[in-house]
Amino acid sequence: MSNADSIAKTETLAPENAIKVSATFERNETVRIEAFSDGVFAIAITLLVLGINVPRIRELGAGGSLGSTLLKQWPHYLAFVTSFITIFAKWVNHHRIFSFIQRTDHPFLYWNGLLLLLITFMPFPTALLAEYLLHPEAKAAGAVFAGTYAAIAFAFKGLWHHASKNGRLLAQNVDDREIRQITMQYRYGPLLYLAAFALSFVSVGLSVGLCLCLAVFFGFKGWPTLRLAKRRL
Amino acid sequence: MSNADSIAKTETLAPENAIKVSATFERNETVRIEAFSDGVFAIAITLLVLGINVPRIRELGAGGSLGSTLLKQWPHYLAFVTSFITIFAKWVNHHRIFSFIQRTDHPFLYWNGLLLLLITFMPFPTALLAEYLLHPEAKAAGAVFAGTYAAIAFAFKGLWHHASKNGRLLAQNVDDREIRQITMQYRYGPLLYLAAFALSFVSVGLSVGLCLCLAVFFGFKGWPTLRLAKRRL
Amino acid sequence: MSNADSIAKTETLAPENAIKVSATFERNETVRIEAFSDGVFAIAITLLVLGINVPRIRELGAGGSLGSTLLKQWPHYLAFVTSFITIFAKWVNHHRIFSFIQRTDHPFLYWNGLLLLLITFMPFPTALLAEYLLHPEAKAAGAVFAGTYAAIAFAFKGLWHHASKNGRLLAQNVDDREIRQITMQYRYGPLLYLAAFALSFVSVGLSVGLCLCLAVFFGFKGWPTLRLAKRRL
Amino acid sequence: MSNADSIAKTETLAPENAIKVSATFERNETVRIEAFSDGVFAIAITLLVLGINVPRIRELGAGGSLGSTLLKQWPHYLAFVTSFITIFAKWVNHHRIFSFIQRTDHPFLYWNGLLLLLITFMPFPTALLAEYLLHPEAKAAGAVFAGTYAAIAFAFKGLWHHASKNGRLLAQNVDDREIRQITMQYRYGPLLYLAAFALSFVSVGLSVGLCLCLAVFFGFKGWPTLRLAKRRL
Repeated sequence: MSNADSIAKTETLAPENAIKVSATFERNETVRIEAFSDGVFAIAITLLVLGINVPRIRELGAGGSLGSTLLKQWPHYLAFVTSFITIFAKWVNHHRIFSFIQRTDHPFLYWNGLLLLLITFMPFPTALLAEYLLHPEAKAAGAVFAGTYAAIAFAFKGLWHHASKNGRLLAQNVDDREIRQITMQYRYGPLLYLAAFALSFVSVGLSVGLCLCLAVFFGFKGWPTLRLAKRRL
Repeated sequence: MSNADSIAKTETLAPENAIKVSATFERNETVRIEAFSDGVFAIAITLLVLGINVPRIRELGAGGSLGSTLLKQWPHYLAFVTSFITIFAKWVNHHRIFSFIQRTDHPFLYWNGLLLLLITFMPFPTALLAEYLLHPEAKAAGAVFAGTYAAIAFAFKGLWHHASKNGRLLAQNVDDREIRQITMQYRYGPLLYLAAFALSFVSVGLSVGLCLCLAVFFGFKGWPTLRLAKRRL
Repeated sequence: MSNADSIAKTETLAPENAIKVSATFERNETVRIEAFSDGVFAIAITLLVLGINVPRIRELGAGGSLGSTLLKQWPHYLAFVTSFITIFAKWVNHHRIFSFIQRTDHPFLYWNGLLLLLITFMPFPTALLAEYLLHPEAKAAGAVFAGTYAAIAFAFKGLWHHASKNGRLLAQNVDDREIRQITMQYRYGPLLYLAAFALSFVSVGLSVGLCLCLAVFFGFKGWPTLRLAKRRL
Repeated sequence: MSNADSIAKTETLAPENAIKVSATFERNETVRIEAFSDGVFAIAITLLVLGINVPRIRELGAGGSLGSTLLKQWPHYLAFVTSFITIFAKWVNHHRIFSFIQRTDHPFLYWNGLLLLLITFMPFPTALLAEYLLHPEAKAAGAVFAGTYAAIAFAFKGLWHHASKNGRLLAQNVDDREIRQITMQYRYGPLLYLAAFALSFVSVGLSVGLCLCLAVFFGFKGWPTLRLAKRRL
């Protein structure tokens, strides 16, 4: 082969190499979006603690007991734990979805951005619920709390629907059963969170409890298992 | 080849290897700057939520409705969403620029540092706008808000101008059309943000609206597409 | 080999390749959990500073000395330093454990989640101790502080116990002496932290001092040394 | 070769492979410490903005001008910018040091931990300086500010001294001139920061100005340049 040919070849890659290169490029972009998202999840989950009130000495009053003051603010710990488990579970879910995805496009970027917006918003409803759970106005706080969870569920559904429709952004040799299983999960998940939202107008306690159960149920069963291995490489 | 020769060779690399090594080194440095920048973007975007006021029970007053209190502080949500979209869009833009860059130098490091300084500053004008949007002093808050956006646009222009002048820091086999397209974007972007800044003295609402539109417009169209693939490897 | 054969082969990998692929996949998952955990550790350790009170001008009073005000709040610095060293040491320990682990399963994910929940909680007891160390109610704050440390020690024990039982999640060619050494450390660590918790009801100062010593002792001796090298690749 | 031989070989690697493996392992550990440190730098730099006071509506008073209120708190912006540039410059320096390092040991881990402790502490003196720069008690705030900077400089000196003594942790084929240049920088740097600390008792303004100049001078000249390339691979 002449030298000129060799140069030409590196510039206008042979078709089979072009496919490899673009696949690597797309995989890189996906990895990058996932890494950025991971950072946002990790920060949002760590900011939750700022919503737990540190009772100041002057608030304690003379002769006040710190122990009983700390016990009285149990809604702060409940809200913290519920939101922690939820964000952690959403991170697991997010990772599961990305383990199937091999390409990105603009709508996918939008959907992921909407999801991250809602995740970074989480410390707000968490602090709100902590402040008002024992207050007559608890229902408004509960509605914001469960409403945010429902919105996150819908954003996940949108992300997955866009990515999986006709296998648009999925890796090629994907196990159809797993795809169907996730699709099923996102069919019922948002409805159950809507139920938790509706429930918040009846009983905030039940609503928060349902949110917690859903996070545990949908979250932890979502970690990618060995069956995915073949698909990824 | 003698043993001594072989040692000498590993120390003073053959010319073609030296080029490869230095290219790898430069690519590594670029990747590292980008990773650090990504971290800063992710944290700044997640800190925005701390600017949303959680109404305390004692602020609510007797018989106050939490629901209407939450609705009344809609400027907090608007400021949060606008800044979120902007930082997210800036991150997309930042990544797009870095997908063309293959070397770094000191001025580039300075420009990137200036950009990050402005990004980490964002939670301040955001909280300011949230506090004052409905107050007679809204215009000062709006000017700080739009002014920060304009400064970010100029920092991006400076970064890109330095990197792309005579292709200084760009990868070699870059598609000229895309370079020109980005250059065009940075020619008009800062001027449009300046317009938003000027507009803030007339109407804060219009100014914020324009900032939001510009972020969506310039941001999301900037995600690198498949055409870049050949260039990167 | 025919073309059809070759396609079939890439889809249903030869057994020895399937093992390699799944090992790579599992290693990737482990790396990802570790990276997410690292992010949480880094953020929690950096949030501690927010617990140090910045004395406001109006709190200083007329003629008040800033210097003496700053000195008087030494419990804030002590709590900051103690928690910093503890989280840093826990990060070192966490990394040491992960350097032995090559697979993940659901319970491991739960244990790691519990550990991270407690790590992100740390800024709360730290700020509490800083506020109350010189107050008559110090013991309640000390108990929360040492109690959180004890809970972290138990979570680590649980994580390690699950991972190392019958070598469940460990890499194959592991040095048994090191495994036994870590197991030994987690046998006595939680008990010593329990002692610190009990001590907090007698003397908060001694309790905090013991927590600090334990962090230094267990933490820094835990950085993986060269002996691990063979195991990892 | 018999099967048994082959197994034995993978377990007790041939000497030349053992060296390669341990070098890779040590490089991995170094990379990991650097990545964790990067996270801490990125978070600390982004938390600085929380020290900038957002003037509340009730603080503004009737007829108060937001514009002039914002201008009056210029020490907040100065402290923010100075600390941002310093942390950014320290990150550049930290990266430069790590580009020479190929091994870690326990004392190195301690030194790096001390450095990170001081970096995460930075938002405190920054907020303190912002609050008191225009107050009669400014000197105490300035001393804490410059004192923290001096402590960081000494921690860097300790880190570098430990790593570079007899080339202990450095890569093998290092350019001696660069090593000497860094050693020189750390000989004079801490003394200059001590001078800034002493100056804070005379004039806080001059002290902060000197800190700013030193950060720019030592920081940005420290980005690793192409000459390092050969050393790294």
